[in-house]
Amino acid sequence: MAFELFYWPGIQGRGEFVRLALEDAGAPYRDVARAPAAQGGGVAALLQALRDPNAEHPPYAPPFLRDGSQVISQSANILRYLGPKIGLAPSDEAGRGWAHQLQLVVTDLIKEVHDTHHPIAVNWYYDEQKPEALRYTQHFLAQRLPGYLGYFEGVLARNSHGSSHMVGSLISYVDTSMFQLVEGLRYAFPKAMARAEKTVPLLITLHDRVAQRPKLAAYLASSRRLAFNENGIFRHYPELDA
Amino acid sequence: MAFELFYWPGIQGRGEFVRLALEDAGAPYRDVARAPAAQGGGVAALLQALRDPNAEHPPYAPPFLRDGSQVISQSANILRYLGPKIGLAPSDEAGRGWAHQLQLVVTDLIKEVHDTHHPIAVNWYYDEQKPEALRYTQHFLAQRLPGYLGYFEGVLARNSHGSSHMVGSLISYVDTSMFQLVEGLRYAFPKAMARAEKTVPLLITLHDRVAQRPKLAAYLASSRRLAFNENGIFRHYPELDA
Repeated sequence: MAFELFYWPGIQGRGEFVRLALEDAGAPYRDVARAPAAQGGGVAALLQALRDPNAEHPPYAPPFLRDGSQVISQSANILRYLGPKIGLAPSDEAGRGWAHQLQLVVTDLIKEVHDTHHPIAVNWYYDEQKPEALRYTQHFLAQRLPGYLGYFEGVLARNSHGSSHMVGSLISYVDTSMFQLVEGLRYAFPKAMARAEKTVPLLITLHDRVAQRPKLAAYLASSRRLAFNENGIFRHYPELDA
Repeated sequence: MAFELFYWPGIQGRGEFVRLALEDAGAPYRDVARAPAAQGGGVAALLQALRDPNAEHPPYAPPFLRDGSQVISQSANILRYLGPKIGLAPSDEAGRGWAHQLQLVVTDLIKEVHDTHHPIAVNWYYDEQKPEALRYTQHFLAQRLPGYLGYFEGVLARNSHGSSHMVGSLISYVDTSMFQLVEGLRYAFPKAMARAEKTVPLLITLHDRVAQRPKLAAYLASSRRLAFNENGIFRHYPELDA
């Protein structure tokens, strides 16, 4: 049976890390909120599943994944669950723990990227927190982003199986997540990323190699890949990019 | 061999969620940075392990746990690893995934609590971001905190094994984490929590029951339990609590 992914239909957001893994693996899945309402899809279906009063394992927020009777949420936790099933995780428990740990660092970085435009309140508009966003982003680009990117570069440099992958000698969802990080950061902060990329050559090489994987490339060229936009996590506000 | 926990010695912080699980389980562990330098402890030992150039699985930040040759970081990931070993996790894989998923929601909430006093830059002092902290915290206490607490209350209410535990019918690290959340929130925001607690009776009952567990109670009464203070995650700034 196909996996069912529940996520907001108009943005890449946190759901995209799951979509990329499913697409690269060629795994059958249904992007529920993007399916027609007549076929049980749409945002109404997402909200109904999110608020199901009978769910014993309710998600706190999208994305969440339904696999038969199981419902799993938190993007890093979804990938931890999916990875071994779709061939995008190491075969040993220690390797799986390491992959998940790296994905949790991605989660932390993504939250900080989100906060560049929403430093005060997730429920308010960007326009309601612009001065704070500018102050936050200046610190983020100067201090935090180089720290995260340097960390990931160091993981590639130290991989005893070579620097072609984040974990061991094989592709994993951590690699597809690195691709997405680079893509998103290039979209949101083209000037800052142009500078930062010079310091992380292994990460950029990994990004480029992931982009050429046939199934992933086909996905990126398809209408299933949503464009980045100013409702998602990676937003391009030129005034923030310096 | 005893587990080695690496975390900042002067605060509860994110490390406390791990300490509470180890203490409740009566598991042998060494709190490395709090041990004397003469015994290989202290902050120097923590930093040396954090920056070990030969580590293939480097932590991004404390806390991290050393178990023999394995080094595991990210507090939720440490608990996921430790739980089954110390009898504080369900025996089945689905239950373990659910416990971890809940701990990741705790992680999200803890980050937001941190940001009540550091909304702009983690590297700056609170005094450098006070107006933003006030604005952030007003929204946090009005909108975000009730959402998180209500979610956890709902998880207890829906547990088909009864509302005595967050996961299934047995104690887990999610329960000790709920205890710590309530403790920390009471310390940081006594006025706001006095109001909020009325809405989450199951959670408060769980907190009270966890506090009475013999090993945990002994820990809380010991000098190993650090006091909350204004260097940690839960900070009491009266001007923020309304």
